[in-house]
Amino acid sequence: MESSKTPSEMSRRQFLGTVGKLGGGAAVFSVMGTLGLLSPETLKAADYEPPDKNELSMSGRGGKKIVILGAGIAGMTAAYELGQAGFDCTILEARARSGGRIWSVRRGTTVAEIGGAKQVARFSDGMYLNAGPMRIPQFHVTMEYIRKFGIPIEPFNNVNDHAYYYNENVGELSGKKVRKREAKADVRGYVSELMAKAVNQNALDMPLTADEKEKLVAYLRSEGGLDADLFYKGSSRGGYKDEPGARLDAGVIRDPFSMKAILNSGFGNYLSSEYSYDQQMMMFHPVGGIDAIPMAFEKRLKGKIRFHSEVSEIKQSEKGVAVTYRNLATGEYQNVEGDYCICTIPLPVLKKIKADFSPDMKNAIESVGYASAGKIGLQFKRRFWEEDEQIYGGNTLTNMDISSIYYPPTGYMQKKGLLLGYYAFGGNADKLGGMTFQEREAHALNQGAKIHPQYHKEFEASFSVDWKKIKYNEGGWVGYSGDQRKTVYPTLCKPDRRVYLAGEHISYVTAWMAGGIESARAVVTDISQRVMKE
Amino acid sequence: MESSKTPSEMSRRQFLGTVGKLGGGAAVFSVMGTLGLLSPETLKAADYEPPDKNELSMSGRGGKKIVILGAGIAGMTAAYELGQAGFDCTILEARARSGGRIWSVRRGTTVAEIGGAKQVARFSDGMYLNAGPMRIPQFHVTMEYIRKFGIPIEPFNNVNDHAYYYNENVGELSGKKVRKREAKADVRGYVSELMAKAVNQNALDMPLTADEKEKLVAYLRSEGGLDADLFYKGSSRGGYKDEPGARLDAGVIRDPFSMKAILNSGFGNYLSSEYSYDQQMMMFHPVGGIDAIPMAFEKRLKGKIRFHSEVSEIKQSEKGVAVTYRNLATGEYQNVEGDYCICTIPLPVLKKIKADFSPDMKNAIESVGYASAGKIGLQFKRRFWEEDEQIYGGNTLTNMDISSIYYPPTGYMQKKGLLLGYYAFGGNADKLGGMTFQEREAHALNQGAKIHPQYHKEFEASFSVDWKKIKYNEGGWVGYSGDQRKTVYPTLCKPDRRVYLAGEHISYVTAWMAGGIESARAVVTDISQRVMKE
Repeated sequence: MESSKTPSEMSRRQFLGTVGKLGGGAAVFSVMGTLGLLSPETLKAADYEPPDKNELSMSGRGGKKIVILGAGIAGMTAAYELGQAGFDCTILEARARSGGRIWSVRRGTTVAEIGGAKQVARFSDGMYLNAGPMRIPQFHVTMEYIRKFGIPIEPFNNVNDHAYYYNENVGELSGKKVRKREAKADVRGYVSELMAKAVNQNALDMPLTADEKEKLVAYLRSEGGLDADLFYKGSSRGGYKDEPGARLDAGVIRDPFSMKAILNSGFGNYLSSEYSYDQQMMMFHPVGGIDAIPMAFEKRLKGKIRFHSEVSEIKQSEKGVAVTYRNLATGEYQNVEGDYCICTIPLPVLKKIKADFSPDMKNAIESVGYASAGKIGLQFKRRFWEEDEQIYGGNTLTNMDISSIYYPPTGYMQKKGLLLGYYAFGGNADKLGGMTFQEREAHALNQGAKIHPQYHKEFEASFSVDWKKIKYNEGGWVGYSGDQRKTVYPTLCKPDRRVYLAGEHISYVTAWMAGGIESARAVVTDISQRVMKE
Repeated sequence: MESSKTPSEMSRRQFLGTVGKLGGGAAVFSVMGTLGLLSPETLKAADYEPPDKNELSMSGRGGKKIVILGAGIAGMTAAYELGQAGFDCTILEARARSGGRIWSVRRGTTVAEIGGAKQVARFSDGMYLNAGPMRIPQFHVTMEYIRKFGIPIEPFNNVNDHAYYYNENVGELSGKKVRKREAKADVRGYVSELMAKAVNQNALDMPLTADEKEKLVAYLRSEGGLDADLFYKGSSRGGYKDEPGARLDAGVIRDPFSMKAILNSGFGNYLSSEYSYDQQMMMFHPVGGIDAIPMAFEKRLKGKIRFHSEVSEIKQSEKGVAVTYRNLATGEYQNVEGDYCICTIPLPVLKKIKADFSPDMKNAIESVGYASAGKIGLQFKRRFWEEDEQIYGGNTLTNMDISSIYYPPTGYMQKKGLLLGYYAFGGNADKLGGMTFQEREAHALNQGAKIHPQYHKEFEASFSVDWKKIKYNEGGWVGYSGDQRKTVYPTLCKPDRRVYLAGEHISYVTAWMAGGIESARAVVTDISQRVMKE
């Protein structure tokens, strides 16, 4: 079986657990393997084997106390899975809500960014901004919990050829909003034409037979929408300047942009944004807000989460871990002790918390940077993108600061709508994050209005988030630089005596909920195995 | 304005109607035009101006009787729009239901194909097969009625990179199911590599500056996922053989297929199926079955549809049209008269109905062929494509007879599921259509099981449709051959005295509901203008 696990890691017990989870006994599993149904994703999904509650309790090792820091998806996954196995978990959460970065901003949501003024969401009821994660690839482990908890989902429209590309300072097509289908048809058309002709003229040095060259040309004709003579002269793929209709209205295909214009536009470089592994269709999201996921966990963790509990110190002894936290409601400092601790606090926050970690661990925690990321939700009176422009979900990409506009993948044809006025990273996120929230709103409206002139007339309310300035997060997601995956990262992956780190930062699925879940499951397995060896 | 309409066709009154429909008076319209919001789709959507009820009634021309043949989307659109303008419409419909090809097969649906045995759908409650149309491009006029009637919609997953390509007799990759992302990554990778190197070596004769060549290479690197030296060595876009996970589990990217293998596989030719204008994302469909659309029309046409009414003769006089029909419930022949008649009966059926059409019209009706198309719905006990293979909607394409498998774009994570076991055209449809429905089921299961070995174990029930053999349709959609669009088609587009044809066949949006709607609106406009001139 294809797996990075060593044989000793994939024990017989794990194997049988896997079989059980696949739902039909060893025979089915064996058949599945034979028939090639054990894809990397299936194997990954079956990778985790929950601890055996009976084994733990019968050996007198049940009920161990685990203190979990942070009620984000990693902390709650750990608490949920450990709870199933009979562990006694307590989660400390500084906020009044669970979810961490999994956060749906709704009417009344209030936040003051670090160094910023207080912002209150004045969205209409039912409108929400998924300020953090907003989409789930269909093959992520996150879908397992959605299935288990019965969370209603709907597609997240990550691809929409009716949305736009809009770039400035790119020559002829500067400041022109172009439907994605136009750019895609032209780029693929011209490049396929060039290539097909070169192949036909044997201008390329290729180890192909004549028959294979013919196949290559056939592919290029199909890929580019070329005519019989291998010319790209535009095609209906790029749309029409007069739509076809009834009777004699055959429609008139748009005139393609020139090869030079489309090449200089930079639009071609946007195409591959749809190709990356975890951005490919189909993607999904919970109906009504991404916070349905933490809410479903929270419901199953009744009484285990202490909210308003801001961790101030982590202290280990031979026999356990003691965590001091400030009760933000009363201002009092309190303590909680456990046999083990799972710390899911993002590293920029953790590094400021007093802890008796080893020097290596301290150094590792301090050295890792986090990504800049920012979003603004803009509520409009009217879904003009649907009504006027027939865009239902998907995104528009631009080289302006706002980087992208995401149209709501939900509530189609409702009266009002809330779109992402920007979802920016890196330098753009820093620039926008450096503004007051009023300035961000104005900037998002002004730049967005170049694409959607309806913006100013229809605008109602905004709410923006700069993740670098959000207390208890201070960053969008981890960003290991240079060779940090080889130097400091392995230290973060190992327990520091009785403290285990978990979160998207302890995974290779960074920035995704799945990373948090996978890392939590790894810790659950480790702790339960360690307890059995005690 | 870009339009194929001549100035006289786009009158001032039409223009103002257009303004009104765009919702904000002439000023808004003017602003929209200036700002470039009048896209071809917007203009097309605004193309239709409903007849003016007041104008008709005040001039004593209201209440004209219109006999409409067929309660499909064209007939019902005509009746709805004419009804709004005060016309007195009667629809004759041979079936017990409205919708025509817009047909959701559910538990208990019964049909005997022409020359075939009776088939009864034994699907579970809530399961359905959209036997005809199943998806709607976001920019089609169909969306206007969905909006107007408040029909709940959800995305139709037309693109899914986690589904498969599967071909036989194509060399090395024969009989191997390959995730679409694998084929896409490899095809784009190798072709981009070849092209990038050729550009770099100036092997291509291109009218580009050095700077533009650099941009072209940058695009190819991005498009193909090439490394710094412009080699394609596989990439995460194609997926992993070991998925990345927690801690040190960085994942192992799959090994790409060889260029020869992927070229010979024919998979590359499947890519462009996602590019065609009316297949591009996003697409939508009504929640709960496509028949929500005809049901919404029917609800607004209470008492106007005579079901079980099979047209047997169309006869015109100087002053009107008389239609004879057989009441299939009683067996009696009955008559209905009107000032005008709109005939939406598909041509293969119409040509067998006695009618005093002109010789030209008769010849036109008789000469046009229709497309072969067939579908089978397969209900399974378990959504193994989701549970085992993480495929949520989208389709798998194959060169076997079954052509494609469409996974349900609805009801995700429910227990049972109904997929399209085939959606075949042309020769494949004829081959499958030539079988008994038991043979079709066996064939769909046997071929499908090569891709999904779970088929046989999980199968519960099927229902298949060969549109060539469906009474009152006798074909999937119109297929004008050779120069028929220039020879016979214009005759079909003109009224034959007092009879107007409508339907997808009287449009350039054939095979789509939008074609039926557009053609019906054209007739509505014509009849109301003709009545005003009487």
